[in-house]
Amino acid sequence: MPEPSLDVLCIGNAIVDVIADTTDAFLDREGLVKGTMRLIEADEAERIYAHMGPAHQVSGGSAGNTAAGVAALGGRAGFIGQVAPDQLGEFYRHDLTAAGVEFITPAADVGAPTARSMILVTPDGHRTMNTFLGAAQHLPASALDEEQIRNSAILYLEGYLWDPETPRYAMVRAIAVAREARRKVAFTLSDIFCVDRHRDGFNRLLDERRIDILFANQAEIEALAGVAHLETAVAAIAPKVETLVVTRSEDGALAVRGDERSDVAAEPIAKLVDTTGAGDLFASGFLVGEARGLGLERSLRLGAICAAEVIQHYGARPEADLRALAGGLLA
Amino acid sequence: MPEPSLDVLCIGNAIVDVIADTTDAFLDREGLVKGTMRLIEADEAERIYAHMGPAHQVSGGSAGNTAAGVAALGGRAGFIGQVAPDQLGEFYRHDLTAAGVEFITPAADVGAPTARSMILVTPDGHRTMNTFLGAAQHLPASALDEEQIRNSAILYLEGYLWDPETPRYAMVRAIAVAREARRKVAFTLSDIFCVDRHRDGFNRLLDERRIDILFANQAEIEALAGVAHLETAVAAIAPKVETLVVTRSEDGALAVRGDERSDVAAEPIAKLVDTTGAGDLFASGFLVGEARGLGLERSLRLGAICAAEVIQHYGARPEADLRALAGGLLA
Repeated sequence: MPEPSLDVLCIGNAIVDVIADTTDAFLDREGLVKGTMRLIEADEAERIYAHMGPAHQVSGGSAGNTAAGVAALGGRAGFIGQVAPDQLGEFYRHDLTAAGVEFITPAADVGAPTARSMILVTPDGHRTMNTFLGAAQHLPASALDEEQIRNSAILYLEGYLWDPETPRYAMVRAIAVAREARRKVAFTLSDIFCVDRHRDGFNRLLDERRIDILFANQAEIEALAGVAHLETAVAAIAPKVETLVVTRSEDGALAVRGDERSDVAAEPIAKLVDTTGAGDLFASGFLVGEARGLGLERSLRLGAICAAEVIQHYGARPEADLRALAGGLLA
Repeated sequence: MPEPSLDVLCIGNAIVDVIADTTDAFLDREGLVKGTMRLIEADEAERIYAHMGPAHQVSGGSAGNTAAGVAALGGRAGFIGQVAPDQLGEFYRHDLTAAGVEFITPAADVGAPTARSMILVTPDGHRTMNTFLGAAQHLPASALDEEQIRNSAILYLEGYLWDPETPRYAMVRAIAVAREARRKVAFTLSDIFCVDRHRDGFNRLLDERRIDILFANQAEIEALAGVAHLETAVAAIAPKVETLVVTRSEDGALAVRGDERSDVAAEPIAKLVDTTGAGDLFASGFLVGEARGLGLERSLRLGAICAAEVIQHYGARPEADLRALAGGLLA
């Protein structure tokens, strides 16, 4: 097995975030449930966009955020995802490339524009996401560069990409290529509704031992295990993967690998601004730690440091110098 | 003359701002002069974009910002400007419309995309703007809705639109329509380099008495008058317009109308974050004051309040409730 040329190759929905402030009354009028992420079609996307307030656009997407975080830590990061040949797609590619991420998946004219997620922020800081998947949901297995996958130490996949059928096949193929090349496969459950939609599929992936590193937050791991008790859920899922990582917001995070277990506290923060991207950036830190063989505890701490940075400003990609924040951990 | 249906109709370049943090070294490498706004062609726009860091996109454009501010104050605002039928153009239209501005100029496929300004922010807070005018520079006089102009109490024009020839003709035509309908015509000199490029044209507009209300900052009025002394410049230009308004950043603002003169202090602010849009929003406040007949001093104070709001956050459009900030002034 040759030395990998990338530390972490992330595969996910290539999505531009369109963010606007709103009110609870607006969510009620539009029939939206606060704090959730939901998939919408073009006509509903148009309706919500026509009604919502002035916005700003930033590149997002869970796995894309993780890739940007890996690069910000000095890791060698790649991203696989599909945009359309349009302005949003160019914007998305520019941002990832400018962040130092290798992004070579070609744009594809599949009759759908680049994906966008309309994120409505209520005065209490909660975010309600309405995602139109567009070109992202048509990512075919044929768009994968299998050599790139074979040359990446860790393949990281987001559960969200399990929603549409075409990229689900692409993910299954990517996992097969990575396993054949004896690379690690990491997977995030993405969100509790995603687990609810795909519990059987996700459990099958685990039972077939196709995942090495599983990321989940407390609600997701409990939903996957079908028990409303953290330690019971951890005990049920941990034996199915080499490494299980569970994030618990202000309660820190834990990881289990065989008989080994590590619990770390959350990093102290000055002020919570916006929790978007916390899980994505936690994964960045943990995966860079793993790629460098830092061991569970230091990898968890690196994840906690990255998550703490991203929740202290708006937007789901790092702004501060993550390498400097990591300090001795990466030395 | 029927009652106007709009208080202020703004005409300017429809531009999306693409904002990224950068370093002084980057500006040097790209041959950019800090703090300036300059027009660039497509190839240079592509080169700078390829080199610059991750960005976010917000709608901008000087006159568009002013229109958004007028609407935020409860004024009836309109905007004339040209976008292309593309995603940036849709984004621009959405933001203005969602802000409550009437924007009925059709998108036009003139072989150029919607305009964008790449704004590079150095750590000292200075902004260096590189503007690719795209579709905005092809705004033809035929795109004007002359009925809309006749029905607006004040027509407001930005000097920047004087740069390309086609919209310059559109502006001249718009001024003629407004004057024929006995509406007020307001004009902003936009920036010192713009004055430098068009000193003769601007002076001719004034000498021909086609401008009623002129907005300038200290550097611009001095450049127009050709003297490096504020009061001398004011004395030279004031007789050429019904109302002259000069903004002076932290030193406040002044207005002259015939024998009348008013000077106001700047509004106190908690923290200066980003000066982009200060002049645009000052104009919003002053024009709403004029439309309501508040008189020079109260109109100036309204302008100062709006400018103070916009410089305390990133972005050139208001975020706080301007009507509430205006308090008794608008009561």
